[in-house]
Amino acid sequence: MLKRPIKGVIPPILTPFKDNGDVDFEAHIFNIERWNETQLAGYLVLGSNGEAPYLSETEKLELIECTAKHANKDRLILAGTGMESARETIALTNKAADRGADAALVLTPSYYFNNMTDEAQIRFFTEVADQTSIPILIYNVPAFTHINISVDVVGFLSRHPNIIGMKDSTGNIPQLVKFQQVSDENFNLILGTFSSWYPALTLGISAGIFAVANCAANECSTVQEAFEAGDHKTALEIYRRVFPVNEAVTTTFGIAGLKYACGLMGYRGGTVRRPLLPLDDREKMAIEKILQTAKLI
Amino acid sequence: MLKRPIKGVIPPILTPFKDNGDVDFEAHIFNIERWNETQLAGYLVLGSNGEAPYLSETEKLELIECTAKHANKDRLILAGTGMESARETIALTNKAADRGADAALVLTPSYYFNNMTDEAQIRFFTEVADQTSIPILIYNVPAFTHINISVDVVGFLSRHPNIIGMKDSTGNIPQLVKFQQVSDENFNLILGTFSSWYPALTLGISAGIFAVANCAANECSTVQEAFEAGDHKTALEIYRRVFPVNEAVTTTFGIAGLKYACGLMGYRGGTVRRPLLPLDDREKMAIEKILQTAKLI
Amino acid sequence: MLKRPIKGVIPPILTPFKDNGDVDFEAHIFNIERWNETQLAGYLVLGSNGEAPYLSETEKLELIECTAKHANKDRLILAGTGMESARETIALTNKAADRGADAALVLTPSYYFNNMTDEAQIRFFTEVADQTSIPILIYNVPAFTHINISVDVVGFLSRHPNIIGMKDSTGNIPQLVKFQQVSDENFNLILGTFSSWYPALTLGISAGIFAVANCAANECSTVQEAFEAGDHKTALEIYRRVFPVNEAVTTTFGIAGLKYACGLMGYRGGTVRRPLLPLDDREKMAIEKILQTAKLI
Amino acid sequence: MLKRPIKGVIPPILTPFKDNGDVDFEAHIFNIERWNETQLAGYLVLGSNGEAPYLSETEKLELIECTAKHANKDRLILAGTGMESARETIALTNKAADRGADAALVLTPSYYFNNMTDEAQIRFFTEVADQTSIPILIYNVPAFTHINISVDVVGFLSRHPNIIGMKDSTGNIPQLVKFQQVSDENFNLILGTFSSWYPALTLGISAGIFAVANCAANECSTVQEAFEAGDHKTALEIYRRVFPVNEAVTTTFGIAGLKYACGLMGYRGGTVRRPLLPLDDREKMAIEKILQTAKLI
Repeated sequence: MLKRPIKGVIPPILTPFKDNGDVDFEAHIFNIERWNETQLAGYLVLGSNGEAPYLSETEKLELIECTAKHANKDRLILAGTGMESARETIALTNKAADRGADAALVLTPSYYFNNMTDEAQIRFFTEVADQTSIPILIYNVPAFTHINISVDVVGFLSRHPNIIGMKDSTGNIPQLVKFQQVSDENFNLILGTFSSWYPALTLGISAGIFAVANCAANECSTVQEAFEAGDHKTALEIYRRVFPVNEAVTTTFGIAGLKYACGLMGYRGGTVRRPLLPLDDREKMAIEKILQTAKLI
Repeated sequence: MLKRPIKGVIPPILTPFKDNGDVDFEAHIFNIERWNETQLAGYLVLGSNGEAPYLSETEKLELIECTAKHANKDRLILAGTGMESARETIALTNKAADRGADAALVLTPSYYFNNMTDEAQIRFFTEVADQTSIPILIYNVPAFTHINISVDVVGFLSRHPNIIGMKDSTGNIPQLVKFQQVSDENFNLILGTFSSWYPALTLGISAGIFAVANCAANECSTVQEAFEAGDHKTALEIYRRVFPVNEAVTTTFGIAGLKYACGLMGYRGGTVRRPLLPLDDREKMAIEKILQTAKLI
Repeated sequence: MLKRPIKGVIPPILTPFKDNGDVDFEAHIFNIERWNETQLAGYLVLGSNGEAPYLSETEKLELIECTAKHANKDRLILAGTGMESARETIALTNKAADRGADAALVLTPSYYFNNMTDEAQIRFFTEVADQTSIPILIYNVPAFTHINISVDVVGFLSRHPNIIGMKDSTGNIPQLVKFQQVSDENFNLILGTFSSWYPALTLGISAGIFAVANCAANECSTVQEAFEAGDHKTALEIYRRVFPVNEAVTTTFGIAGLKYACGLMGYRGGTVRRPLLPLDDREKMAIEKILQTAKLI
Repeated sequence: MLKRPIKGVIPPILTPFKDNGDVDFEAHIFNIERWNETQLAGYLVLGSNGEAPYLSETEKLELIECTAKHANKDRLILAGTGMESARETIALTNKAADRGADAALVLTPSYYFNNMTDEAQIRFFTEVADQTSIPILIYNVPAFTHINISVDVVGFLSRHPNIIGMKDSTGNIPQLVKFQQVSDENFNLILGTFSSWYPALTLGISAGIFAVANCAANECSTVQEAFEAGDHKTALEIYRRVFPVNEAVTTTFGIAGLKYACGLMGYRGGTVRRPLLPLDDREKMAIEKILQTAKLI
C-alpha cells in the first residue's frame, strides 16, 4: 500500500485570541484566507505553535472544523491530537477526523518519563494507529517533551500502514540521515524546524512544518522551489536570510514573538494565553528590526 | 491570615481500571474504605500516581466526588488540577471544589520549556490562586515536568494568601532547606517522596505525600510518629526498611509496580493505561520479594 | 581486614597564588598553621577547591609535601590524584605517597563520557587500587565530571581492601542511603558538601569534606559535636546558619568566592587561576554581608 | 591580516599502544607513512581520538615530534594542547610549537562547569592566543566537555589575529549556520564529525577533522572532491555509505572500535588505555560487518 506523499511547506498555524482570552475565530478565518493566497501545501491546526496544550477540547474541535471549512481545497489539513494516553488520543483523533482533519500529528507521550521506553512508544503508536479513522504522523519534539524518539522505533513504526510519517523538530541532521536509512520508503519524513531546511533538502527531504511559515510562507516555499530548480544559490540565500527570523519567532521570543511578527506581516496575531507572557516594547522593536534586516518588511 | 496547617501522610491514590480500561469505581471505593482504617491524614486524588494525565475531565471529576464521599470525615481531600494553561487550571480547580476537593495541587506549567521563566511561573500561580474557590498548593516534580521551581519563586508565592503550600517531589534535601529559609512561616512544605522522609522530619517537615503510602500507609505514618516521640531508632529502622519498597514502586517499576504491590497488600490495584506497560512475571516476582524483605508481606 | 575509620571534618584546602600566578607556599604554610589550631580532622590537598586541574605535577607534589610537613601530626593527609587514565593515576598516587599523603582521592574518570560504563569504572578503580602504595577513596562529583557513580559500582568497589571510602559531593540524601545499604560496613562514606551535613549525620555519616570548612572550620565541626552530644537544636541552628555561607563559597561564587571569604576570616586566600575569574566589588560585598549574617565576622 | 585557510580532511590520529601500554612509535610511523599516501590534508596529533587525556606530557611531545618528522611536507600538523588552565595550556602549546606543530587545537575549559561563562571562555582563549607562538583553533566538543561554546563567544574570538579557526564536533547544523553568520570571514570553521559532512559542504564548509578518516581517508576526501566537482550524487552516495562506519567507530564502539577498524584496514591500531575497555568478539564481528556493508573491506 502506498502512503500519501506529503510535499511542500505547512505552517503550524497560530491560534488568535481576543483580549478576553477567547479564541478569535474571525481573526482565524482572516488568516486562513490570507494563507490561501500563498504557496503553502497545507495547515497544521493544534500544533505546538497553535498553543494546543492551552485549549479545551471544544475549542480544538471548532478550530479544526473552521480551518477545514475555509482552507483552499488543495490544502492538506493536519491536526495535532496527541494526548498522554492512547485512549484519549484515539478519541480525540477520531473526533478530529469527523471535523475535517485529513491526518493527525501525535506527540510522543512523555509524562512518565522513565517508563517511556522504546517498547512503550511502539505499543502506544501502534494502538493509536490501529484505531484511528485517519492516518497519523509521529511528532518528535524533544524541546517540549524531553523525549527523543529512537531510530529503531522510527524504523519499526514507519512500516505500519496507518502511520504515514513523522514531523521531526530536532533539526538534528545526522539523526535525520539515520531516520532515512531505517524508514520505509513511503514514510514521510517531515522537517519540523526551518533552521535545517536547506541542508535537509540536499538530503532529499521534501516537506517542512515551520513556525516561521506563519509569517514568511512564500520565502519558505521558495527555498524548496529554487533548490528543486537547481538554483542552489537562491535557495541558500533565502535560507540564510530567513534563518534569523525563524530563530526570533521560536527560540528567542517563542509564540508571543511569532504572533507579533505575524501582526507586522499583515496577519492577525493577537495575544498569548498564560503562562506565556506578552512581549515588552524592547522585544517588539527587536523583532521589527529582525524582519527589516531579513527584508520581510 | 493563618493558612491551614497540613500534617501527616497522604497517598497520591492510584486509580484502578477495569480490564476494558474504564475506571473501576467499585474497586476505588473498596480501597478508600481500607485506607480509612489507617492513620493517613488525607487523600490526593489525581496525582501523578493516579494516572491523572491519562484521565478525561469527566473521569477526574467523578473520582474527586467519589473519593470525597467515601473518605473519613477527618481526611483532607486534595485534587490534582494542574493543566498547562491558567485558564484551564482555574476552570478545573473550581469544578473540583464543587465536587468536594478541599484544596488543589497545581503542577508547574512546563510545555513551552524555554518560556517557563520565574516570571511566567509567578504570574501563572498568582492568576490561578486569585481565581480559585479553594486554596492551592504548588506541585514541583521535575522528574515529570523537567522544571525545578526556583527558590525565589517559592519565596514569593508562599506569601500569597491562597497558596497554602507546595509538594516537592525532588527529594533534594539541600534545596528543601533553602525552601524553608525563604518561605512564609505558614506555608506548608510537603515532602513528595518517601525517599527523604526521615531526614526531612529531622529538618522540621511535618507532612508527606508518598506513592508508597498507597501500600504501606501505617509504616509511613509510624516513621513520623516515632520520630515525634523521640524514638529515632525506630523511625530510622522503618525508614530504611520501607526505602527499597518505595524505590520499587516508583523509580524501578513505576505505577504498574505500585498497583501490583497494592494488590499484594490487599488493595485492588488493577491494570495501567497505555502507554504504561503491565509488569511481566519476572518483575512481579521481584516486587513480591522486595515486599517480603521489607516484612510487609 | 579493617579499614581505617575516618571521622570528622576535613577541608579541601585552597591553593593560594601570588599575583604572578605562582603557588604562594608561604601563604599556604600560614593557612595550615591556622587550621592546625581548629578541630579539623585532616586536610585534603589537591581537591577541586584546591584548583588541582590547574596545577602542574611539580606543583602538586610540592603542595603535598609542604602540607604533610606543616600539618599537626594527628591530621589525616589526603591528596587528590585522579587523572583520566589508570596509568597516570597510579603514577601520581605513588608519587603522592612518597611525599607524605596518607590516602588518595581518585575522581571517577569521565572524559570519554559514553564509554564510562559501570564495567569501565569498576576495572579502573580496581586497577588503580591494586597498584597504589596507599589506600584510595573514590571521588564522586557529578557537578564537575557529569558522571554519577552507580549504586552497584559502589557496592562492588567498597569490598576492595585498598578502597577505603568515597567522597560523595552530590548532597543527594536518598542516594546516600542507597550507598549505605550496599556498602561494606568498613567503607567510609564521606559527605562532600556541607549542604547536607546535619541530615547526613542523622543517617549515621561521620565524616565530611567541605569547601566551607576552609573558612568556617570550627562551625562545621561543632555541628557534628553537638549532634553526637544529643544537642540537635544547636547542631541544626549552626547548620542552618552556615548553610548560606556554604552556598556562597561554592555554587554562587565558586573558588574565587571561597578565597575571598577565607581572606575575610583571616586566612590568605589570594587570586584564582584563569579561566576562573576574580570577583568584582559587588560580589565581594555580597560575600561580606553573607558572612556577617552568619555571624562569622 | 589574512589567516591561513584550512581545506580538506584531517584525521585526529589514533595513538597506538604496545601490549605493555607504552606508546608504540614504530606502529605510529607505519601509520603515518600509510596516511601519507592518501589525500589527507594534515594530521591532528593529541585529539580526543588520540587518547590525549591519557598521555603524559613527555609522550605528547614525542608524538608531535615523531608525527611532524614523518609526515609529508605538505601536511598541516595540528596538536591538541588544551589543558584546564590558561597557564598550562600556554606552556604546552609553546612546547608543541618547538616540536613541530603548525597550530594548536585548544579545548574549551570545562572543569568548574558553573563558572565557565562566556566571559571566562573569552578571557581564557584571548590570554592563550596572546601568548602562544603558533596560531590556535578552538575545540568545541560538548560530548566530552559538556560545554557548548556560545555563538557570541565564537563571533568575538574569531576576530583575534592568532585564533584562526574552530573545530566544532557537535554536528549541529543550525548552530553551524549561526557560527558562520557571526564569524570573521577568514576564520576557519572546521567540521568535527563526519556525520554532517555532506550537508556542511553544501553550506560552504571546506574542512573536516573526522575520526573515521583514520580508516577511510580517501572516502572522506572524495565526498568533498565530488561535491566541489558538482557531482552531488557521488558525494551523497559515499557520505551515506560511510555514515554507519563513522557511527560505529565513534558513538557505538568508541576508540577501541576505531582502532579495531583501522587494524582491519591495514593500519596498526593496537589496544586502548584504561579506563577504556577492549572490544569483545561480538563487537569485533559487528565492526567487520559494518565495514563490509560499506564496501571498505
